[in-house]
Amino acid sequence: MSSLPDIHFFHQLAALSEDITLKSYRQRANLGVSNKPKEGFRFDPVTDADRATEKSLRKHIAAQFPDHAIMGEEFGNVGHGDFQWVIDPIDGTRPFLCGLPVWGTLIGLTHKGRAVMGMMSQPFTRERFWSDGDNAWTCGPLGEIRLRTRQNIQLDQAILHATAPESIALHAGNHFADLSRQVLMTRYGGECYAMAMLAAGFIDICVEYSMQPYDIVPLIPIIEAAGGIVTTLEGGRAENGGAIVACGSAALHADVLRILTPLR
Amino acid sequence: MSSLPDIHFFHQLAALSEDITLKSYRQRANLGVSNKPKEGFRFDPVTDADRATEKSLRKHIAAQFPDHAIMGEEFGNVGHGDFQWVIDPIDGTRPFLCGLPVWGTLIGLTHKGRAVMGMMSQPFTRERFWSDGDNAWTCGPLGEIRLRTRQNIQLDQAILHATAPESIALHAGNHFADLSRQVLMTRYGGECYAMAMLAAGFIDICVEYSMQPYDIVPLIPIIEAAGGIVTTLEGGRAENGGAIVACGSAALHADVLRILTPLR
Repeated sequence: MSSLPDIHFFHQLAALSEDITLKSYRQRANLGVSNKPKEGFRFDPVTDADRATEKSLRKHIAAQFPDHAIMGEEFGNVGHGDFQWVIDPIDGTRPFLCGLPVWGTLIGLTHKGRAVMGMMSQPFTRERFWSDGDNAWTCGPLGEIRLRTRQNIQLDQAILHATAPESIALHAGNHFADLSRQVLMTRYGGECYAMAMLAAGFIDICVEYSMQPYDIVPLIPIIEAAGGIVTTLEGGRAENGGAIVACGSAALHADVLRILTPLR
Repeated sequence: MSSLPDIHFFHQLAALSEDITLKSYRQRANLGVSNKPKEGFRFDPVTDADRATEKSLRKHIAAQFPDHAIMGEEFGNVGHGDFQWVIDPIDGTRPFLCGLPVWGTLIGLTHKGRAVMGMMSQPFTRERFWSDGDNAWTCGPLGEIRLRTRQNIQLDQAILHATAPESIALHAGNHFADLSRQVLMTRYGGECYAMAMLAAGFIDICVEYSMQPYDIVPLIPIIEAAGGIVTTLEGGRAENGGAIVACGSAALHADVLRILTPLR
């Protein structure tokens, strides 16, 4: 593989996002909210902060790496090349609008289609979670800490997370309820922050039935470098999104896929 | 009414809670988790941090106000008197265990059964939300700000929140789905933090089908002083818990009760 960028560049991008997003978060002024309805949700919000953040990140990336491609939630794909940056300026625009600090800026990098580096930045809590390609780390109010998933957790002691019950209900014939019945507890509403908590070892299973590439690519290297595994529901690579299952360990992941896809 | 305590005392209590809870939050060490199963949830966690926090708050209250009664989640009711302190040391022990910063320490005060002062403290984000009996405020990373609910929001532009889909499903014959279909969007998983965001004007409707008095009493004065309204599903005072509906305005609250209790 060509040499990877320094993780310092990801921190620069996160700082740019922080400056823009925190000017809009928890503001009562007009946030320029508009609606891009999608399957199952009559309201899928996008704000001026989403657009301004993505523009700023694209500009900074293009200046530093003019031969890299860029994919972002709001402005599509630009360029070709072995390296592609994958950006979700505000993952969790819904909690952003609700004032709930579980949104984040996602910045990922793929090499020949495979996610190799990634960062999730939560500006309000002043936390970042990242992988430099080898290891995964977080910094925040509790200091800088190596991320490690929880290993050796049996299914009946596992914590399950899914962001939106609506997305589960839309996935006809799903077996989520079978899984939920067998775990210790099920939580909702955590967006990218829940995936970060999986990497940190506090959540064991994340199931999302409808992810876009920019929702998951930046998180893949973080989860994998922390000792976790993230695939599609069919067990393939997660870079193209779709129905995604992340687990803290391979053993738990095998159990979960067996329950969610019993007819395979 | 006898004179109310100074809000400074609530901040002292919140500081005590902060010292204890942050020592356990996001720790991988044994948190002393035990289970007190309740209706609909086979796992209802309580940790050493819940117990230690409540003990510390009780001790501090008893020393300062020996003639006040105290009710807490973990250690029941003590004393009699016109004033009663109502404590939930960690509201949201589930998100506490998941590493999600939507838990909080709830401290309320009732006078002759009516909630008159309250505080929600979120130590990790360094935020507090309180009512001194007249007004409601928050302090945190964005400064000290007067809390005001969002007014003049029509139902189809409102943001709805409920913590657990399981609690809704357990409430036989409920009309939550009818409400959810008519609002702008529905979010889950926010615990007491969602109620604070209602007071702050970012969420418009909170519906919880199964609250204990200590889950809601400390939040009532905050919501009311911010311009909101919080009642039971039947429209009565919320101090005794049960099925609770909080809204940013009286007009929205009337619309919501009409949908949730169509046969009244």
